[in-house]
Amino acid sequence: MAGMSTRSTQVQLVARPHGWPTHDDFRTVEVDLPDLAPGQVRVANEFLSVDPYMRGRMNEGRSYVPPFALGETMTGGAVGRVVESAADSVAVGALVSHMQGWRTVAQGDAGEFRVVPDLPGVPSSAHLGILGMTALTAYVGLLDIAGMKPGDTVFISGAAGAVGTAAGQIARLKGAARVVGSAGSSEKVALLTGKYGYDAAFNYKDGPVREQLPTVAPDGIDVYFDNVGGDHLEAALDAFKDGGRAALCGAISAYNSTERTPGPDNLTNMVTRGLTLRGFTVGGWFHRLPDFVADMTGWLTSGQVVFDETVVDGIDHAVDGFLDLMRGGNTGKMVVRVAQG
Amino acid sequence: MAGMSTRSTQVQLVARPHGWPTHDDFRTVEVDLPDLAPGQVRVANEFLSVDPYMRGRMNEGRSYVPPFALGETMTGGAVGRVVESAADSVAVGALVSHMQGWRTVAQGDAGEFRVVPDLPGVPSSAHLGILGMTALTAYVGLLDIAGMKPGDTVFISGAAGAVGTAAGQIARLKGAARVVGSAGSSEKVALLTGKYGYDAAFNYKDGPVREQLPTVAPDGIDVYFDNVGGDHLEAALDAFKDGGRAALCGAISAYNSTERTPGPDNLTNMVTRGLTLRGFTVGGWFHRLPDFVADMTGWLTSGQVVFDETVVDGIDHAVDGFLDLMRGGNTGKMVVRVAQG
Repeated sequence: MAGMSTRSTQVQLVARPHGWPTHDDFRTVEVDLPDLAPGQVRVANEFLSVDPYMRGRMNEGRSYVPPFALGETMTGGAVGRVVESAADSVAVGALVSHMQGWRTVAQGDAGEFRVVPDLPGVPSSAHLGILGMTALTAYVGLLDIAGMKPGDTVFISGAAGAVGTAAGQIARLKGAARVVGSAGSSEKVALLTGKYGYDAAFNYKDGPVREQLPTVAPDGIDVYFDNVGGDHLEAALDAFKDGGRAALCGAISAYNSTERTPGPDNLTNMVTRGLTLRGFTVGGWFHRLPDFVADMTGWLTSGQVVFDETVVDGIDHAVDGFLDLMRGGNTGKMVVRVAQG
Repeated sequence: MAGMSTRSTQVQLVARPHGWPTHDDFRTVEVDLPDLAPGQVRVANEFLSVDPYMRGRMNEGRSYVPPFALGETMTGGAVGRVVESAADSVAVGALVSHMQGWRTVAQGDAGEFRVVPDLPGVPSSAHLGILGMTALTAYVGLLDIAGMKPGDTVFISGAAGAVGTAAGQIARLKGAARVVGSAGSSEKVALLTGKYGYDAAFNYKDGPVREQLPTVAPDGIDVYFDNVGGDHLEAALDAFKDGGRAALCGAISAYNSTERTPGPDNLTNMVTRGLTLRGFTVGGWFHRLPDFVADMTGWLTSGQVVFDETVVDGIDHAVDGFLDLMRGGNTGKMVVRVAQG
């Protein structure tokens, strides 16, 4: 076991995708790890996170976070267990989350690893989703970016995804009067109104979003949590009440486009209705982690929040998992389980 | 004189324009005014305001302010002198501003009329522009909507207009590090950098805004004050630094369009750079009037702020003045002087 864990299988980006990524844009390497230096820990990863934002980082270009480096291991969220420690602050056996990404074994200074609790009945992968960056994104987007207030009507696109399922529940628990969402299949729509407590939802493939949104939010919306962009944002701009606010979290509809996509044709509504659109990435909001973790741990352990995961097995399928995520093949958080030998 | 002022020439909207308004969309009527009721005043107007926002109100549709009513007199800003008073609070001879719009004589409850000072060397029309709603719009847009801070680089489109010339000067006086603007002729560009203290400006007809903006703001922009929309907003979204904020004040480029205009093709920058776009109309911000009037009166009387007006003579030419404004024929505030018989 100790011998095995000095070898790390890692997935690296070797070419910048043009449009949809392919397997040729990645390679898998085996790395022999050096002995731990004082203050370092070694972690056997249990789960890796694949997230939509990673597509943006595969491009060159200016961003809050720099692009992934070519020829280096994909970084990103991961959770694992400490198997060796040269740091007094972190014991062997501790569960930790970190950002070293797509590798079977991670090591580095203890400060890179955040010890997280083993909660009864909660898989460690939850620290990548409902207790991790994913749900923090939902929390910050709703409360800090869109300024959701009790009594608001909230619309969430990509609602069956990891961020969307968290956002819908957080909206309800923070006092939204009505929570509606969109997803890409009737099964997902049923999950939203069944399991996730959405008041109403629609399948965006059933007809124009601009026509469907008013049927589930006939009195208009106050807040829009945008995971999609494109036609969904346009529909929201039509549906907004005066003073409406949108948190722009991502635009999957544009991620793999090789052409520039025109924006909404109804931005003048922003002037006449006094609307606000605000983009964000969670990177600047880690100071909200304590509030979020306190709220979410309470909701989760009391059964007020539920979550789904779509698990892909084996680091060899990390790229497949990422591509499936981009196609909407997941319900809830998409994670890659790292097979422990 | 007293006899004359009981007759009011008024311009009414009689049809909703499709695309560019024409004279056929309006009519001029003569109205005999009743005697004043207790608490009322009668005002001989000196100047009427024509403003871009009026085009929006000529359409049907939801807005902060309701559409102009067909068959009724055009409302809007006006300034005049009290010629008869049945109200203790307002004396004959007082200069007042009000919202009764396109008429030679206005009357109503004293509460509809705001007494404004006769400032030495300042024409009464200034209360429609640099001391009125126009410059209040610039003040609120910069400070409250876009949250301009000292040290910011500020870009203003439609900069030679009434709002734009006020906004550039307010930005400078409130500590902007650099103020740049766009306008539609080389004469206007020269005015911006000469008279109005802009650090740099360009003629948007000389080439794509997306190419010209970086030449005047090579390090990017923090704040964008949008009077134009369209290609200007797109260029601003490219030029924004992380955390950039735009106040969307109007979109002249779309006002007379009969087709839906696609929005910017680079909204994903909002996510990666954490940008905020916020639309507004000044209607919700009258509580800022005291701060604004105090600041602006000081700046104006000390010569720190200058202004231009384009004056159209005669209420019979109010529609012409409005159309000329929509075509960009004005420098600074466009007003209609009411000929007093």
